[in-house]
Amino acid sequence: MPGLRITALAGGVGAARFLTGLIEHCAAHCPGSELTVIGNTADDLRLFGLHVSPDLDTVMYTLGGGVHPDQGWGRAEESFVVQGELAAYGVEPQWFALGDRDLATHIVRTQMLGGYPLSDVTAALCRRWLADTAIPVRLLPMSDDRVETHVVVTDEQGRRAIHFQEWWVRLRARVPAEQIALVGAEQARPAPGVLDAIASCDVLVFPPSNPVVSIGPVLAVPGVREAVTTSTAPVVGVSPIIGGRPVRGMADACLQAVGVETSALAVAEMFTDVLDGWLVDDADAAALPALSALGLRSRSRDLWMRDRQTTASIAADALALALDG
Amino acid sequence: MPGLRITALAGGVGAARFLTGLIEHCAAHCPGSELTVIGNTADDLRLFGLHVSPDLDTVMYTLGGGVHPDQGWGRAEESFVVQGELAAYGVEPQWFALGDRDLATHIVRTQMLGGYPLSDVTAALCRRWLADTAIPVRLLPMSDDRVETHVVVTDEQGRRAIHFQEWWVRLRARVPAEQIALVGAEQARPAPGVLDAIASCDVLVFPPSNPVVSIGPVLAVPGVREAVTTSTAPVVGVSPIIGGRPVRGMADACLQAVGVETSALAVAEMFTDVLDGWLVDDADAAALPALSALGLRSRSRDLWMRDRQTTASIAADALALALDG
Repeated sequence: MPGLRITALAGGVGAARFLTGLIEHCAAHCPGSELTVIGNTADDLRLFGLHVSPDLDTVMYTLGGGVHPDQGWGRAEESFVVQGELAAYGVEPQWFALGDRDLATHIVRTQMLGGYPLSDVTAALCRRWLADTAIPVRLLPMSDDRVETHVVVTDEQGRRAIHFQEWWVRLRARVPAEQIALVGAEQARPAPGVLDAIASCDVLVFPPSNPVVSIGPVLAVPGVREAVTTSTAPVVGVSPIIGGRPVRGMADACLQAVGVETSALAVAEMFTDVLDGWLVDDADAAALPALSALGLRSRSRDLWMRDRQTTASIAADALALALDG
Repeated sequence: MPGLRITALAGGVGAARFLTGLIEHCAAHCPGSELTVIGNTADDLRLFGLHVSPDLDTVMYTLGGGVHPDQGWGRAEESFVVQGELAAYGVEPQWFALGDRDLATHIVRTQMLGGYPLSDVTAALCRRWLADTAIPVRLLPMSDDRVETHVVVTDEQGRRAIHFQEWWVRLRARVPAEQIALVGAEQARPAPGVLDAIASCDVLVFPPSNPVVSIGPVLAVPGVREAVTTSTAPVVGVSPIIGGRPVRGMADACLQAVGVETSALAVAEMFTDVLDGWLVDDADAAALPALSALGLRSRSRDLWMRDRQTTASIAADALALALDG
């Protein structure tokens, strides 16, 4: 297969893992390919005055070989000396894991943000991580503007909106999300390069990311969903739901909040206006006729990304579904 | 001896070490004493967007039992993971040692400075370190306003002014200082409590600190030198020069820049308008008549702070020189 210009909309761990397989497959079978990743930034938060971009960092560390191999986010061989000291000062919050290695990224990002937009800062950080990938990889934030996912919950402090990360990390998504709001989304502009990467690619991929709080925010940046719809490139997604349960994370809690069933079919229905193909697990093969009725090309296969080889094979099948029809 | 209200003007390592002796002596022999330390902030700098206060931290860590015991600054059991990562990103400067434990202090300080003056921030940080000292200790920055020591040097980049820390740490004070300037000193106001701590104390102490870049900047804050002159408390200093050489550090390079000889006598002459007494080392006993001719009470003793007991004894002699005349 010739080189492909691939663009992916990405959340965190699931997307990053999928993309390692995509890169491995393309390096071996589609030489000359290039990947542009449009990363979700609606998880971004300020911690101790530092700008943290969890999803961008997960993609950057994973594709750059620096991610913690077991947990899939944060840095390998991480230590937590600074966090221990912050706790000794009694400052909050303590619920967000802030490793020493990871912290350096936030420090550099925060200082650069004093003079440059997030897209430039991300490119600068990626010069360290993505200079030697098996195919060229570019990581773009979905927007240079602040977009923040907030979750409305009712807890001991009453009904209130909290930052997504507080709900996800501190509360482990155990308090029901009554509503999920994207603060700032309406005013946000796509970061430089985002619309062009969607318009001018050969294939557009939705990796197995949380549809509500990862893929959803990227598509919510004004102009992005329209660009995906009008792009001539085929758009293929990999279901983040297998057999009625999320591949990882707590996507079911997010889907519940927006009134969508936790199923491969229901998630596809969220994106029928933008998708051309939808890859599901064999456990969801029964949904294939319904997906076809929605006008989607689809097929089933093993979607558990249990090792590099399987992950590359999933990516290969996603590309095949997009390109071979 | 009854409890004393002691105020000290302090630089970094030398002052901090002396003050541990002063506290030890007072706790044992002058119960009910209280110490207010007015710290030099003209060494402060921004590193990677973080506000670093080297002298305040040295005093805080030392009196709080957290200082690196051998080097006398920075934290005990320190690691440098974050700094290694910053270097991996290629960001400058690399010449300032930025330990992980120490870094947490800068992070908390910087975040709090977004809403509070340095004096409040320092008080907040000291709640962790100075809550259990043997006598009550209060640490005040000399000013909440920016005052910064710059040094004019001529090097391969020509004649230019650089931050004191760059000259001191990166260049090890080996390039001659042609001029030392206190940027912002004229507009600075003493921090809340500073003038009162000088006016209302029983004894005012100048620990063995660098006279040019530690004691000098504190006295240069408008109103401070006048307050010391008009205070009814006796003012006693401990010479930072022994036998024509600095007790530690490179004070000789600073004295040279301001045209002052590196001697216990010459340093006393810099402060004759404010000093009542001046404690010198036995090596400088020959200067006693000249000190007397300057109108200063003085005596000589062993001034090497080689252990806690000796340091406490030096502090006791300084107090005696101040109070007994």
